[in-house]
Amino acid sequence: MPTYTPPARDTRFVLHELLRIGDLGELAADGELIDTIVDEAGRFAAEMIAPLNRVSDEQGCTRHSDGSVTTPSGFRPAYRAYVEAGWGTLALPVEYGGQGLPHVLAAVVEEYLDSACHAFNMYPGLNQGAVAALVAKGSEELKARYLPKLVSGEWLGTMALTEAQAGTDLGLIRTRAEPRDDGTYRIIGEKIFCSGGEQDLTDNIVHLVLAKLPDAPEGSRGISLFLVPKVLPDGARNAATCGAIEHKMGIHGSATCVLNFDGATGWLIGEPNAGLAAMFIMMNVARLSCGNQGLAQAELAYQNAAAYVIERKQGRAAGSTAAADSLIAQPDVRRMLMDARAFTEGMRALVAWTALQIDRSHRAPTEQARAAADQLVGFLTPVIKGFGTDKGFETAVAMQQCFGGHGYIAEYGMEQIVRDARVPMIYEGANGVQALDLAARKLARDEGQVAERFLALVEGTCESAGAGVRFIALPLREAVHEAREAGRFLVATAKADANALGAGSYAFMHLIGTLALGWMWLRMAEIAAGRESDPFYAAKLATARFYAKRWLPECAALTRKIEAGSEAMMALEPDQFLRG
Amino acid sequence: MPTYTPPARDTRFVLHELLRIGDLGELAADGELIDTIVDEAGRFAAEMIAPLNRVSDEQGCTRHSDGSVTTPSGFRPAYRAYVEAGWGTLALPVEYGGQGLPHVLAAVVEEYLDSACHAFNMYPGLNQGAVAALVAKGSEELKARYLPKLVSGEWLGTMALTEAQAGTDLGLIRTRAEPRDDGTYRIIGEKIFCSGGEQDLTDNIVHLVLAKLPDAPEGSRGISLFLVPKVLPDGARNAATCGAIEHKMGIHGSATCVLNFDGATGWLIGEPNAGLAAMFIMMNVARLSCGNQGLAQAELAYQNAAAYVIERKQGRAAGSTAAADSLIAQPDVRRMLMDARAFTEGMRALVAWTALQIDRSHRAPTEQARAAADQLVGFLTPVIKGFGTDKGFETAVAMQQCFGGHGYIAEYGMEQIVRDARVPMIYEGANGVQALDLAARKLARDEGQVAERFLALVEGTCESAGAGVRFIALPLREAVHEAREAGRFLVATAKADANALGAGSYAFMHLIGTLALGWMWLRMAEIAAGRESDPFYAAKLATARFYAKRWLPECAALTRKIEAGSEAMMALEPDQFLRG
Repeated sequence: MPTYTPPARDTRFVLHELLRIGDLGELAADGELIDTIVDEAGRFAAEMIAPLNRVSDEQGCTRHSDGSVTTPSGFRPAYRAYVEAGWGTLALPVEYGGQGLPHVLAAVVEEYLDSACHAFNMYPGLNQGAVAALVAKGSEELKARYLPKLVSGEWLGTMALTEAQAGTDLGLIRTRAEPRDDGTYRIIGEKIFCSGGEQDLTDNIVHLVLAKLPDAPEGSRGISLFLVPKVLPDGARNAATCGAIEHKMGIHGSATCVLNFDGATGWLIGEPNAGLAAMFIMMNVARLSCGNQGLAQAELAYQNAAAYVIERKQGRAAGSTAAADSLIAQPDVRRMLMDARAFTEGMRALVAWTALQIDRSHRAPTEQARAAADQLVGFLTPVIKGFGTDKGFETAVAMQQCFGGHGYIAEYGMEQIVRDARVPMIYEGANGVQALDLAARKLARDEGQVAERFLALVEGTCESAGAGVRFIALPLREAVHEAREAGRFLVATAKADANALGAGSYAFMHLIGTLALGWMWLRMAEIAAGRESDPFYAAKLATARFYAKRWLPECAALTRKIEAGSEAMMALEPDQFLRG
Repeated sequence: MPTYTPPARDTRFVLHELLRIGDLGELAADGELIDTIVDEAGRFAAEMIAPLNRVSDEQGCTRHSDGSVTTPSGFRPAYRAYVEAGWGTLALPVEYGGQGLPHVLAAVVEEYLDSACHAFNMYPGLNQGAVAALVAKGSEELKARYLPKLVSGEWLGTMALTEAQAGTDLGLIRTRAEPRDDGTYRIIGEKIFCSGGEQDLTDNIVHLVLAKLPDAPEGSRGISLFLVPKVLPDGARNAATCGAIEHKMGIHGSATCVLNFDGATGWLIGEPNAGLAAMFIMMNVARLSCGNQGLAQAELAYQNAAAYVIERKQGRAAGSTAAADSLIAQPDVRRMLMDARAFTEGMRALVAWTALQIDRSHRAPTEQARAAADQLVGFLTPVIKGFGTDKGFETAVAMQQCFGGHGYIAEYGMEQIVRDARVPMIYEGANGVQALDLAARKLARDEGQVAERFLALVEGTCESAGAGVRFIALPLREAVHEAREAGRFLVATAKADANALGAGSYAFMHLIGTLALGWMWLRMAEIAAGRESDPFYAAKLATARFYAKRWLPECAALTRKIEAGSEAMMALEPDQFLRG
């Protein structure tokens, strides 16, 4: 069974040495407090939550004939302990009972909990987005009634967006909201894929539901967001019930529900027909969380694979005459482990750096600085989600591979990690949607201005890099040139070819992801340079070197794919795709 | 639930137009007979076997307290029908009741059956290798006693190689074989991961078991191969029993057994201590079959994804004003489908071309021609296994992605394809072992001679390519240069650095795989050029163009990774891999 050790040394490196979180003006956080929280969160994740992971996969959730749902054994006491410790409240507003600490800290805790038990953390995880949407768009009355209990975790919020015929394209939803005289709405429709849509952890569940008002415009401009509680303010049960739970490939402990709204009472959040904007507040929080899940699954898989290949004796090291040496002597096993280190440590840095930009977007001293930070978060969100979950899954698969046949059987738990790590590539907007968001909304819409600002940031670090890290600064600078070229190609060809952005979007997302992690590795290498006598820093430098030689060469290949354009990709008629 | 249509049009293209199977001198096969067999095999796979796939995943296999195993419902009658139709006998020797048809034909049938139900085809699939080993190394007495019933399928053969402490490194096995006065051996030990080690399809099971004779040399030079039947010639039950079946990520319908040999009676196959060579006869057959499984799973996944995205309406095509268009209008969806076509059609051609080399290695008129064909098979076997199963899995994952959330739930069956497609990357020598086999045994041992012959073959096709296919011939020729450079680098650095081959092996395997598929695409494009009025050939040309622009750019990146050498990869001490 997999074990989990919080990577606290690496987290401290990121927070203190890379981000210098104690030294950030308005954003500064008390270094000792931060360390205490990180250590406590690590202990909680490893001791209280990690033991639930296996059993939650085996048991899954059970729906009873009355529509109630039982979560796996251990989830209820663990969730009570979670609420008592206040783990969900770290970065939430003080005004509603939150602790008002930096998002970057909440991101660390989220990573630890996702590693420990992704399925468990689905329940409180989605609540963060619901709170954000309600804070931004809810009426004072709704905020006063719901936020304190959602912030404390006494209740949990969910997202009810998808319908059978409307997934990626929410403009196609059919759920209706009929206004009543008392200002509430009657919600009628069926939603699918609602994570935590029903559960036995909290007395009330607050669904944020997309629905259409009568005479709403067609498509995504006619969607409104409603708050629909499971239990109404007067204590009566609302007509929002779980009709079924899905049988999924993984995260069995997370109840993925069909929700039936049979004339349920709801309250409008924000303006009529402006639900998509409110929904995106939730969604962007959730997308960053997905990237963290990719990191967390990769970290869990990496730790167990490293321990296994050190222990397991098969074959011989170069020049060895032993009967057998540890598998870690094999270069190809090293390749997989080094890839995993390159991804997890680079991604941990990128997630934290981006979370810090969220804090900057709220608290930086000038409006301009806040807007600039917000734009960078917007630019990197689809990259963290799409690239981060692709690589998280890829890492999980490679770590499973380190186990040979033992990786394929349930006993060792690696196959569960692979099944669980698969879902963040799909939900909260499939990764192809992330790529299109990046290429169309984040790159082409402003003709590449924010993209150029990001590339210039990376280039600036390359420019000023010391001689000791030239091994990565030089190829990274080449990669910046490739990415700039690729971005310009996309913006330029999009004017004449409506398929150009879509055709190059996925490669562009991976190009920016590879570059962003490369940037983190350059910065980490700069900190480590000259401190090689400490094995921690020596490992950082070696991994940066590995990244430069083994990951950055992808940038040229990705650029060539982008420059291939859309022609060959779009050449076939639909019928030609069918076999016979 | 996934449906399956045999890709008969594409198969006919490969057999008749690419390989010109009716026009090959000694190897020529009757074109009409071939077509009839292909059509009948397709019908059998689609109608009789494909309906078993879902139920076999849900039911799995059951071991009873007496050690007997029940396979999923439907397997027994399906296997009877398989034996009656003679599907397992196609390429087996006429001498023992086989049909003596070309291996290339058996490879086609194998692909169809693997697509229909991989788990079902595990049982007869492994029998092919057992027969090959026995034909090559068995005594006349053993051949006479076992081959007729193994060839007919009345009995099935298995491989019992792995032990808990010996997977990749079979030199570490502990199973013992004690000689008896009557010339038989007493086999004592425990084997794991024996596919079909126990089942209810045949009255007898013939285990080929690796074990050590008393005073055998240490390591892999001291291994012998034994034939250990479940039922002895006198009708008594042998002391070879199933102790447990594993709970696996996928192929639940295949019984993966722990086998206990408690003084079972066995017969030596071949010379004492030469078991590894005999085992490799089985293993090489199985490795090529793995590549075919990668292809088959990718094909099944592709067909279902193509049908889904044509049917499913989400979002809009470029410039469309419809409420919603089919998902196939999205360039990024096309990317995934075109990748799947590029892989499946290229791989189908490569598997068939390589199977034809097997036929050449047996039947070509000169010893030199037979040896040359055999060397090419040896060179490509690890590529087909490693690259083919990596890409097969990657394709299955991408096709699952086309389904969005529906891909993650069991109902649509795509997640089963992903779970099933994962195992061929692991068994019959994990893909890292394939890569090392390629780099060390197939490349470095003869200083790159066979590799150069393969590259020269590809280059020759590029040289003579017509103007209409220059779009792929030119970049493919560049890729040949890259591969030649990479191969030389590996051979040269291996002399000074014992880790060099291992460090570059995986990238080299993918480089040769990408090149080999590119070669097939060039040859297919040559056939299609000028016949674009037929949508089948138009699609071939478009896919060749896609391959040139989207796959061949990988070759340069892979070469850069190979040239990176082993230094950064091997820099860390084992302790540095542990987190804290």
